[in-house]
Amino acid sequence: MAHKYVYLFNEGNADMRNLLGGKGANLAEMTQLGLPVPKGFTVSTEACTAYYHDKKTINDEIMGQIRAALKKTEEVCEKKFGDPDDPLLVSVRSGARVSMPGMMDTILNLGLNDGSVKGLAKLTQNERFAYDSYRRFIMMFSDVVMEIPKAKFEKLLDELKEEKGVKFDTELDAEDMKAAVVLFKKLYRDEKGESFPQDPKVQLIEAIKAVFRSWDNPRAIYYRRMNDIPGDWGTAVNVQSMVFGNLNEKSGTGVAFTRDPATGENKLYGEYLINAQGEDVVAGVRTPQKIETLKDVMPEVYEQFATIAKKLEDHYRDMQDMEYTIERGKLYMLQTRNGKRTAAAAIKIAVDLVNEGMITKEEAVLKVEPRSLDALLHPQFSRKALKEATPIAKGLPASPGAACGQLYFTASEVAAAAKGGQKVVLVRMETSPEDIEGMNYAEGILTGRGGMTSHAAVVARGMGTCCVAGCSDLKIDEENKILRVGELEFHEGDFLSFDGSTGNVYGEALPTEEADVSGDFATLMSWADAARRLSVRTNADNPKDAATAVRFGAEGIGLTRTEHMFFAADRIAAVREMILADSESQRRMALNKILPMQKSDFKGIYEVMGERPVTIRYLDPPLHEFLPAKTMTEEIQEIARELETTPEAIVAKIDQLHELNPMLGHRGCRLSITYPEIAEMQTRAVMEAAIEVTQEKGIVIHPEIMIPLVGDVKELAFVRDVVVDTAEKVMKEKGVKLSFKVGTMIEIPRAAVTADKIAEEAEFFSFGTNDLTQMTYGFSRDDAGKFLDSYYEKKIFDYDPFAHLDQVGVGKLIEMAVQLGRQTRPEIKLGIYGEHGGDQSSVMFCHKVGLNYVSCSPFRVPIARLAAAHAAILDKQGKL
Amino acid sequence: MAHKYVYLFNEGNADMRNLLGGKGANLAEMTQLGLPVPKGFTVSTEACTAYYHDKKTINDEIMGQIRAALKKTEEVCEKKFGDPDDPLLVSVRSGARVSMPGMMDTILNLGLNDGSVKGLAKLTQNERFAYDSYRRFIMMFSDVVMEIPKAKFEKLLDELKEEKGVKFDTELDAEDMKAAVVLFKKLYRDEKGESFPQDPKVQLIEAIKAVFRSWDNPRAIYYRRMNDIPGDWGTAVNVQSMVFGNLNEKSGTGVAFTRDPATGENKLYGEYLINAQGEDVVAGVRTPQKIETLKDVMPEVYEQFATIAKKLEDHYRDMQDMEYTIERGKLYMLQTRNGKRTAAAAIKIAVDLVNEGMITKEEAVLKVEPRSLDALLHPQFSRKALKEATPIAKGLPASPGAACGQLYFTASEVAAAAKGGQKVVLVRMETSPEDIEGMNYAEGILTGRGGMTSHAAVVARGMGTCCVAGCSDLKIDEENKILRVGELEFHEGDFLSFDGSTGNVYGEALPTEEADVSGDFATLMSWADAARRLSVRTNADNPKDAATAVRFGAEGIGLTRTEHMFFAADRIAAVREMILADSESQRRMALNKILPMQKSDFKGIYEVMGERPVTIRYLDPPLHEFLPAKTMTEEIQEIARELETTPEAIVAKIDQLHELNPMLGHRGCRLSITYPEIAEMQTRAVMEAAIEVTQEKGIVIHPEIMIPLVGDVKELAFVRDVVVDTAEKVMKEKGVKLSFKVGTMIEIPRAAVTADKIAEEAEFFSFGTNDLTQMTYGFSRDDAGKFLDSYYEKKIFDYDPFAHLDQVGVGKLIEMAVQLGRQTRPEIKLGIYGEHGGDQSSVMFCHKVGLNYVSCSPFRVPIARLAAAHAAILDKQGKL
Repeated sequence: MAHKYVYLFNEGNADMRNLLGGKGANLAEMTQLGLPVPKGFTVSTEACTAYYHDKKTINDEIMGQIRAALKKTEEVCEKKFGDPDDPLLVSVRSGARVSMPGMMDTILNLGLNDGSVKGLAKLTQNERFAYDSYRRFIMMFSDVVMEIPKAKFEKLLDELKEEKGVKFDTELDAEDMKAAVVLFKKLYRDEKGESFPQDPKVQLIEAIKAVFRSWDNPRAIYYRRMNDIPGDWGTAVNVQSMVFGNLNEKSGTGVAFTRDPATGENKLYGEYLINAQGEDVVAGVRTPQKIETLKDVMPEVYEQFATIAKKLEDHYRDMQDMEYTIERGKLYMLQTRNGKRTAAAAIKIAVDLVNEGMITKEEAVLKVEPRSLDALLHPQFSRKALKEATPIAKGLPASPGAACGQLYFTASEVAAAAKGGQKVVLVRMETSPEDIEGMNYAEGILTGRGGMTSHAAVVARGMGTCCVAGCSDLKIDEENKILRVGELEFHEGDFLSFDGSTGNVYGEALPTEEADVSGDFATLMSWADAARRLSVRTNADNPKDAATAVRFGAEGIGLTRTEHMFFAADRIAAVREMILADSESQRRMALNKILPMQKSDFKGIYEVMGERPVTIRYLDPPLHEFLPAKTMTEEIQEIARELETTPEAIVAKIDQLHELNPMLGHRGCRLSITYPEIAEMQTRAVMEAAIEVTQEKGIVIHPEIMIPLVGDVKELAFVRDVVVDTAEKVMKEKGVKLSFKVGTMIEIPRAAVTADKIAEEAEFFSFGTNDLTQMTYGFSRDDAGKFLDSYYEKKIFDYDPFAHLDQVGVGKLIEMAVQLGRQTRPEIKLGIYGEHGGDQSSVMFCHKVGLNYVSCSPFRVPIARLAAAHAAILDKQGKL
Repeated sequence: MAHKYVYLFNEGNADMRNLLGGKGANLAEMTQLGLPVPKGFTVSTEACTAYYHDKKTINDEIMGQIRAALKKTEEVCEKKFGDPDDPLLVSVRSGARVSMPGMMDTILNLGLNDGSVKGLAKLTQNERFAYDSYRRFIMMFSDVVMEIPKAKFEKLLDELKEEKGVKFDTELDAEDMKAAVVLFKKLYRDEKGESFPQDPKVQLIEAIKAVFRSWDNPRAIYYRRMNDIPGDWGTAVNVQSMVFGNLNEKSGTGVAFTRDPATGENKLYGEYLINAQGEDVVAGVRTPQKIETLKDVMPEVYEQFATIAKKLEDHYRDMQDMEYTIERGKLYMLQTRNGKRTAAAAIKIAVDLVNEGMITKEEAVLKVEPRSLDALLHPQFSRKALKEATPIAKGLPASPGAACGQLYFTASEVAAAAKGGQKVVLVRMETSPEDIEGMNYAEGILTGRGGMTSHAAVVARGMGTCCVAGCSDLKIDEENKILRVGELEFHEGDFLSFDGSTGNVYGEALPTEEADVSGDFATLMSWADAARRLSVRTNADNPKDAATAVRFGAEGIGLTRTEHMFFAADRIAAVREMILADSESQRRMALNKILPMQKSDFKGIYEVMGERPVTIRYLDPPLHEFLPAKTMTEEIQEIARELETTPEAIVAKIDQLHELNPMLGHRGCRLSITYPEIAEMQTRAVMEAAIEVTQEKGIVIHPEIMIPLVGDVKELAFVRDVVVDTAEKVMKEKGVKLSFKVGTMIEIPRAAVTADKIAEEAEFFSFGTNDLTQMTYGFSRDDAGKFLDSYYEKKIFDYDPFAHLDQVGVGKLIEMAVQLGRQTRPEIKLGIYGEHGGDQSSVMFCHKVGLNYVSCSPFRVPIARLAAAHAAILDKQGKL
């Protein structure tokens, strides 16, 4: 039997998401549930991958199935494609496995041609509407399918209005629209050298192909990368008979959520526009009405909708995001899906659903995306500052959080300024899918137009970025880059603050304060902690970060970088003195100056962490990082004065330390091998601090000493000997015995493949996946930017391997090291630290390969806790 | 039972080399054969490793065994340590598993003290001799064991001579020597704060410890690294009763070989000195007599020696190198071992031994060290030049080959100049073990003093370096750096040539010509080729190298680097034009200029190689390598003029291409992914050249196209598509079908661990072990020099992993890749190229893991052929 590529809505269900896409699967499910869904069919994601495989053609088998499905749709609708009396018109929409709002293309009113437009006019008794729809369809088809710029069509329409002496589209009558159709068709012919296709079947196939192609447009690729969506999934295409929300005043269209997607409050939440097409709501061009008001306008429709909404939420056991259209008083459901929500809403909804008895605690844990917590954990404006500040404007609170930054008017300027290190906010009239990259860089997004479900609002919530939308007080002059609010004027680079939870906008930089981690958040996290197996530690180089992490639930420190302490202004001189030393004894003198400072750092951290484990990594970076660049003449002279040497001596040392590939140079344990006195000093600091805190506070400290950049067991054995000898000496001096561990980082491929040998000397491994990724791939993070864009563009990489752990290659080395390490030393403790330690998919991987802990930056600790819980629950369900 | 650490000579045999060291095992074997060997015992290599393990102490168990062995030796010698009438005196010598001539320490006449010196005087009836021996022993013990500089003792002796008004040691009488003993003992007490040890047992233990310590002196470490000897083997110590070659005119000492170690000629070959100690011969201080003359001086001794020599050669089935001493007309054998020999001698001896029916062809193959061939394969002076040139001096032909270079007078200056790129020769009065590094850098070594078995001669032969020794015509003023030969004067940096096969020295730079690869060489290589399984290819970027390699037996090209062609003066302009291009079309224009040049290169190589496979690697280095450094203002202006652009534009491009870690940057296949037109051009050149040569010469060319630096199968798939599409286009244009292969290098760790996936797109793998080593270890070859010395010193590394393949780590990745690659594609062809491809131990590894071929530089092809044969034979014998 032939493979099935095309499914009528009544042939599918919600479980077929991978095949039918999210939208298609849910249209099928709603059809099965007996809800009022306009008829249609879905061309599967497999057809999309076949399209790409066949060098961007739709093969005969799939063509045949599309034609057959179309025929059945004509039959059940009792309408015919292109019929001059009662034509079937369809929408053609993308629909991937996961929602990618606005990223791909949509075509409405397909099926209109010179004949069927008459049928539409007859049917709707509205000739103007029919020709308006036709000219819109020509424009959309030309733009999306044929890549004729939309602006050329808009220019023709503007000329028409000018000729007629009117200002708005609404002032054009049916005859004008007919004229527009004539002009648009001529433009099409001029551009493409052939007539606008009159055969609706040709229109349909071309539209399907265009949707397939849109899977690979640059903004979709960028979105996928940002959201960790594989490039080979492809999109399904939904072909659905049209219903019209813009027929008359008894028609309308809207979107709604079963609960408030910003707060999670349990009440129907949404908007609608009377006499409008669906795109008008989403695009945010007209500001819509709240759904509550529909109760007054069309009470029966409202009741029916509320019932359906409840039914869908119960059915899916989750908050639903629905699109609907009312055609002459009759309700049609166009889409339902689990609604996107803010992190705060996700938590409230999850906890509420448990309390309502609808889901289990573990299901609740799975309902909150770990990465979404990011938004919750970042600072809010301080209450005090808010009390004193006066808002200059108010918009819709579209995505919560506090944004404060320098304002820019275009996405590309925002991106550029953010890359330059500024904190920036994006201020636009409205955003569009092309702005996706800039939106990702912005601290917050502020728009002058559009509602809670406008593009800006939806995307910002997805990103966890603060957004205030539809702030009509703003006069935004994008061309001259001036923002006017009443009498006030702001220019590019001026500071603005705004609050995504209240919609307030402030004409100044407001201070922020820490997030609240109690209430529903604490409840959900306690369920997560009960479920997870992985420990979660933090990376912290100072007591302040350590304290933040403990507040966020860190169970220890997985990485204290000692070199960050070396960079501090009050000790860099001693470090430089050490580097410039010509002999071991000079070097020891300089190290003796550093010792008390380093010791006091460790004491501070131990005191915060108490008896939680603290892993301290020994000096890692190449020494030249502590010296200025050779060209910084003034700084060199300054240092020479301070260290009582000559600038020439410093330049000579800089030259001597210069490396062609510093990433692969003299650093990590290699430093302690050439200069064992560095490891001695660090060990003395670690042990003296531990003994003193133990004595002073009665807390028993068990330091974990981590030797970086080991590639051969003999390197570790050498440094370990230095560490153990020194530690024993210190303990003998102080007359105190403390247990301590010596371990290593696995960050060099050779360490991973010889982990059995390395485990002979290491009591723990910590995977340093940043360096391991660099060396396993053979590219440097600093330089890869030059070619990674080509890699995304050519679909060689789906994502940045520094953001998400490469489980295939780097992951294989980790698995080897885990297995070999445990083989030698079954009780060895295994962890990971670095950016991957707080990345959701990477944490899942760490659970899967059996690590003991992950370690991440303080703000990511809750994300890691939740991701670890997801992994454990999915593992139990056999779904990891 | 206690572990046995000490063996009397009659308790061991030749098979116990690992335990007793080479010297000890052979002394035992000679003892077992009933040959006249002075009695003694060997402290095993295990005792040495125990010594290091016990923090440089000899433990009680070993001490007890040494004392017991000493007691038995006293019994069989019927002499007592320290006896004032008939004392036992011993030599204490190092002896590792493999010979390391001159690298470690030796102490003679141990057992002398204030009492036993009288016994020695009585016994020898020679008081002067006895006290001379005693003062020499004090000096040697102080120097070797106590590290009191020898020069201080020499100064005392000089003062003594001055006082007496004489010039030579020989003019000092017994009373003077007694005085010297008094002075030397005082110096010892002044230096060490205690008296010179009078207890011979204390002397012995200290001497044994000193020999153990000498295993780790810097020159021994360097020698091991050069010769691939593990640092944890340790040395044995041989304690042997002294016999004296310097008692009278019926005494003497010498060394001899059963065949000529320079030519392999089958005749007794050696030297002796009458009335001398063994060290006098080896040190080359006096010029000795040829062994043939011993026939006249002591005919019976000569006969006895010749008989023993034959017996030993027959016994060991190999050419022997023997040390002997004659004491008052009685012959003693002090050492035998398989003699070091030149490569030419090794080949002749191996072939002769087969012809004499003594060994099999495979045994013959094993008798020639692959790496020794190096010496044979390098150029000789052209016959024509030799005919026209007049030698200015003649020395002993100590190690064959032709040396031509600028002369330097010290080892360190030679090393410095060679590192600076000069071809250099070392000219010294005599060499000493401290000179080892400089000798390794020299094209040739020329000494004014010393015989065929002097330090310079022995070491040079081992290295395969040309050496002319004992050239007494030279007046070498090392202090003022002037070499005088008759009327001629040469200064540092002047050119000299000399011929290690004739001993002739020329005061000019003579041209050289290629080595002869016929005769015994061809015979032996044919036996090797019959034995080996690995194919041997060459790395060649031009027809000349390809032709040399074919002459040396290369079976194909494993690596043609295309970028070397890009650097040629006549095309670098086009390459730079390509790099500076702002658009694809500009880049294509520049590439079109390069195409015909690259095509003609390939044609030249194909024509030389015929139907042998040719692997062409696509552009690999980062593009900035083709531009000058930013500081080279003049060159930049020149380029700007040539390319009709501004210097600023070039500087901007240099800045844009700058990378922090170029090793991990934008290079290899990453270039063809960003600029597919480069791969297109290269494919066009490869295919057009192949088609034209096929058409013009009737040779069917099957190019193998190799994509570098692949880490992910999708990278390879992308470039492969470009290659295949272009190749098919070219073949269609030309109407010719040719088969070609597309493969990749495995040089990135990720490629090795995902080799199963990569093999889906690769028809062959070539392991690029230089880069693979860099990335697996995480250090760059260019920068590792800064810390590798510390690594050798601290015994973390035994050898440079860029010279010898790291079989533990890098090797494991190779094994994984072999297994995974074959799993996906059983017929996949697997090779290796780079320095490891011509390295003996690495080739053995390649055989072991089942590669199909190795590829190396043309001059190393015979080495690889022979190493591959060794591997196959040892594999068959179960010894690999």
